[in-house]
Amino acid sequence: MFESYLPTRIVFGVGAIEKLPKLVTNLGKKTMIVTGRKSTKVTGLLDRVKAMLEKVGIEVLVFDKVQPNPISDHVDEAAKIAIEQNVEFIIGLGGGSAIDSAKAVAIAAAMKDSFWNYTNAGGNKKPDKALPVIAIPTTHGTGTEADPFAVITNPRTKEKVGIGYDVIFPKISIVDPSLMTTLPKDQTAYTSMDAFYHSLEAFLNIDANPYSDLLAIDSMKRIVSFLMRAYVNGEDIEARTNLAWASTEAGITETLTGVIANHAIEHGLSGFNEQLPHGLGLCITGPYLLEYMFEECKERLAVLTKHVFNIDEFNVNKAARLFIEKLYEFQDLFNLNEKLSKFGFKEQDLPEIAKVAYRIMKGVVVKSPKKLEEKDLVEIMKKAL
Amino acid sequence: MFESYLPTRIVFGVGAIEKLPKLVTNLGKKTMIVTGRKSTKVTGLLDRVKAMLEKVGIEVLVFDKVQPNPISDHVDEAAKIAIEQNVEFIIGLGGGSAIDSAKAVAIAAAMKDSFWNYTNAGGNKKPDKALPVIAIPTTHGTGTEADPFAVITNPRTKEKVGIGYDVIFPKISIVDPSLMTTLPKDQTAYTSMDAFYHSLEAFLNIDANPYSDLLAIDSMKRIVSFLMRAYVNGEDIEARTNLAWASTEAGITETLTGVIANHAIEHGLSGFNEQLPHGLGLCITGPYLLEYMFEECKERLAVLTKHVFNIDEFNVNKAARLFIEKLYEFQDLFNLNEKLSKFGFKEQDLPEIAKVAYRIMKGVVVKSPKKLEEKDLVEIMKKAL
Repeated sequence: MFESYLPTRIVFGVGAIEKLPKLVTNLGKKTMIVTGRKSTKVTGLLDRVKAMLEKVGIEVLVFDKVQPNPISDHVDEAAKIAIEQNVEFIIGLGGGSAIDSAKAVAIAAAMKDSFWNYTNAGGNKKPDKALPVIAIPTTHGTGTEADPFAVITNPRTKEKVGIGYDVIFPKISIVDPSLMTTLPKDQTAYTSMDAFYHSLEAFLNIDANPYSDLLAIDSMKRIVSFLMRAYVNGEDIEARTNLAWASTEAGITETLTGVIANHAIEHGLSGFNEQLPHGLGLCITGPYLLEYMFEECKERLAVLTKHVFNIDEFNVNKAARLFIEKLYEFQDLFNLNEKLSKFGFKEQDLPEIAKVAYRIMKGVVVKSPKKLEEKDLVEIMKKAL
Repeated sequence: MFESYLPTRIVFGVGAIEKLPKLVTNLGKKTMIVTGRKSTKVTGLLDRVKAMLEKVGIEVLVFDKVQPNPISDHVDEAAKIAIEQNVEFIIGLGGGSAIDSAKAVAIAAAMKDSFWNYTNAGGNKKPDKALPVIAIPTTHGTGTEADPFAVITNPRTKEKVGIGYDVIFPKISIVDPSLMTTLPKDQTAYTSMDAFYHSLEAFLNIDANPYSDLLAIDSMKRIVSFLMRAYVNGEDIEARTNLAWASTEAGITETLTGVIANHAIEHGLSGFNEQLPHGLGLCITGPYLLEYMFEECKERLAVLTKHVFNIDEFNVNKAARLFIEKLYEFQDLFNLNEKLSKFGFKEQDLPEIAKVAYRIMKGVVVKSPKKLEEKDLVEIMKKAL
């Protein structure tokens, strides 16, 4: 048995951004754009979006302090302004950090309360409302445009926590590949692999179902087929379109099924050292996780060997091994097979990281096809040191 | 560019019906079950659902006059009762007729107005609200569990009109294959082929997009793989599960993209003679429509030859012809290659039927890959006489 629920209106395609003013007509006359410190300014996108909205009489506030691995302090700061200024809806413009922050601000502003109270690491309260959120991603990986999740870090406790509430499904997501052509090479690879692991983990999840399987396989195929093209030529709009759609598909798999232990480990790692890019962290530990639960997931991996890498191998063990090999080779094309030690992680750090990962993301760890405890997470990270 | 919007919570799987009481907890204390005159009583399902709801303190009214090709008079009659009795939500229990009627009742009751005013053949008004609708399908074909559409016939004008409004997306759809095992052989084939044509027509629609393509192909594959099993043994729950999911997938393609001329023609035909089952009508004219627009859709058909029928043929013309042949052969397995004359249609009826079909369903006719006018619809039906 499974459930499908995705109330977001997703407008997808080159030029979709032009529909923004019309789409938000009924949401109010005052908005806050939540964005990062740099890229949407450099590309002119922030000014462009602001102008589009002002032209139809919408007053626009800009909160532009969001950082990679966004922090709860900024969420509360933005929410305070949103409350004071009677902001009616929130626009997340940028990568996952900006959109996840927008979702968090939408909760804090509507509930008139500190955001951390709505995390399981904090007050563990449930929000019964949020301001409407419009998601406008400029990267193709997080899937946040099609899910009810946000990942925010508490800078004091170093807890990187994922929340999931129906009230923060974006009301509208505008996924326009033409906004993604300026994404640098490394971000192109990182965000695409984030999407790849959303789909891969959903496919291996014990709750996997036919709907998410279909989207998961399709999105992995698109990433394998098009990532190199966008990596070599960022302006390749066909490649960007395929990667953007793959990201949204992968986001839907998160909503339908969800990730497993690899994402939990990564939250532990990048909560501990925020210099580790999320997508890269997933690639570093991913293949080792697959090895670690090989017996429990080999049948599913064998399916992916055929459908994602287009290889016919009928021996299940061989086919599953081939998937891990090919994934490793694929990651190598983009220099994604790094080691944790390069980012300063030491063996003695791992138990604490595993402990945090397990505590804040136990809900996804238990969806892995093999029973994994804290010590197992340590073992997996050890191999990736 | 395309849009994806499906706010329905779909609960899918064997045993999903057990979740009904919990799912409707917040919708109110008084409901109306809209159902047909016979099958949900014979199987005991109506009593079972009624008892489940009453057990949790929900008062249940039953409106059980719905007929195949449901009529607007019954909608208004049920809505009158719903208004008088302060019904808070509507449950559609049965085939497409029951669920579509429930959607129509939900509009008429909330707007306190005659339903026909909300059709393009009637008053052409837009409803801004509807009572919440719960869809519980007992057939696997209409897709109404995953779309904002309802098809209702005006018995006086013989107009069989489709409406589509966001307010009648079911709030919740419970798709439980175990409720479908008593479906008779002929209905098993008809409803499955209704789903097949939803997907096929969406795939050929000029607005086709990667999301609906993916679901369309998957649903057609499931129907080709499992229909014979359910036809031979109605209790085959794996087959029913695959057909039920295929129907929901096909419903999603309707929402994402939509049908084309074949559905318009069929509405014309079964509006004129309501003895013609909808799914059978689609099968009768479907292959002729494909022939008629062969040049405009052959590349797409060739894709389906490979992915639906698993045949490798690299010559596009040959591959596309093969699709039509195989479709015809497949339909033949279930005696679906009938002729219109068998249902009393005569050549002199066709211009009037084409006129009605074109008028009430022009919106889908123009989505066909070939420009089709009234006279073209006549030509297609002539071949199927």
